[in-house]
Amino acid sequence: MLVRELKRGRSLLVRLDHGADLVNQISELAVDESIHTGAFSVLGALIQAEIAFYDQESHEYSALLVEENAELVSCTGNVSIREGKPFVHAHVVLADSDGKTTGGHLLHGKIFAAELHLIELLGEPMVREIDQTTGLYLWSG
Amino acid sequence: MLVRELKRGRSLLVRLDHGADLVNQISELAVDESIHTGAFSVLGALIQAEIAFYDQESHEYSALLVEENAELVSCTGNVSIREGKPFVHAHVVLADSDGKTTGGHLLHGKIFAAELHLIELLGEPMVREIDQTTGLYLWSG
Amino acid sequence: MLVRELKRGRSLLVRLDHGADLVNQISELAVDESIHTGAFSVLGALIQAEIAFYDQESHEYSALLVEENAELVSCTGNVSIREGKPFVHAHVVLADSDGKTTGGHLLHGKIFAAELHLIELLGEPMVREIDQTTGLYLWSG
Repeated sequence: MLVRELKRGRSLLVRLDHGADLVNQISELAVDESIHTGAFSVLGALIQAEIAFYDQESHEYSALLVEENAELVSCTGNVSIREGKPFVHAHVVLADSDGKTTGGHLLHGKIFAAELHLIELLGEPMVREIDQTTGLYLWSG
Repeated sequence: MLVRELKRGRSLLVRLDHGADLVNQISELAVDESIHTGAFSVLGALIQAEIAFYDQESHEYSALLVEENAELVSCTGNVSIREGKPFVHAHVVLADSDGKTTGGHLLHGKIFAAELHLIELLGEPMVREIDQTTGLYLWSG
Repeated sequence: MLVRELKRGRSLLVRLDHGADLVNQISELAVDESIHTGAFSVLGALIQAEIAFYDQESHEYSALLVEENAELVSCTGNVSIREGKPFVHAHVVLADSDGKTTGGHLLHGKIFAAELHLIELLGEPMVREIDQTTGLYLWSG
């Protein structure tokens, strides 16, 4: 277990832009506001999305396009440093008009409307490095 | 992107009332405690619920009644000001006895048991106003 | 409604251990770090999991084994005191390779990779006691 204690930075509420990409918007926010480490949640609706499942044996992501409009019923994620830059990691659950849900690692999400709550965390930034066991960029210190 | 920096207010943990409505309970809490802006999550179980999907073309909500008892497996939301009063916006994912999930915008949820974590945010309150592009009451400043 | 105001303690980001149990890891963290009360979220992937649904009439949990590898698309929970010790309560939504989701009360989850954000809450700890109406250990003060 790698435990990092951080200090609370800013608390931000953000209305993200209609038509923009959810991952890009949070990345831009992190760059513009110099946020190196943080935790967030988002609720709203997406016009369409691309999510992914990570194959734990082949160590490859398979992508899934969600073409219908969807409620963004859950989105939790974090910001940390990967290759020297703020990197956004988010998982989502989407719901269609019948309430049917689809979930995964968020690759892209075209925003219809989105409300972000982000908690900035200050101190030594959390850094991602490739982990041989999982093939993922995990927090390494 | 509308970015609002707020100051951290109180951190509340709340056991909500068995048999009461989840949205009403959080609204009452916000009014009673004079919380104008905040972010929250809830876990628990609901006796039944009514959720909604927003049609991005017709700009109308369609409601879906979930009549069976359900685990409240995810509930994230926020409090902000709409028409001069604290307004609760929450999205949920519900699970039935087979683990099957249903999600949407929460209209009503009759509480079996519910545990709320709410972070109050102080400063200029976030205010909702009607947005012509989406037909929704979005954060306008 | 039982409303408890707590003071903000530490903010922790934690990379949990590959192959370990998600509930046990958070319990161990709480014990090791003397965290009596807190709120958390986790994202990552699980090798397998066991989740449960609480029958609101019989007051019994039925367990469901999720044997396939899964994205941990949502996990929210809290730490409070039950029978004198820190107790972890978490609900999850899991997604398979088709994005299909399954959710419930988390009993066990074998970690492939998991990133935890935990907010410690200080002050009089929140304590669980058996509640006759629901048959659950609920926050009693």
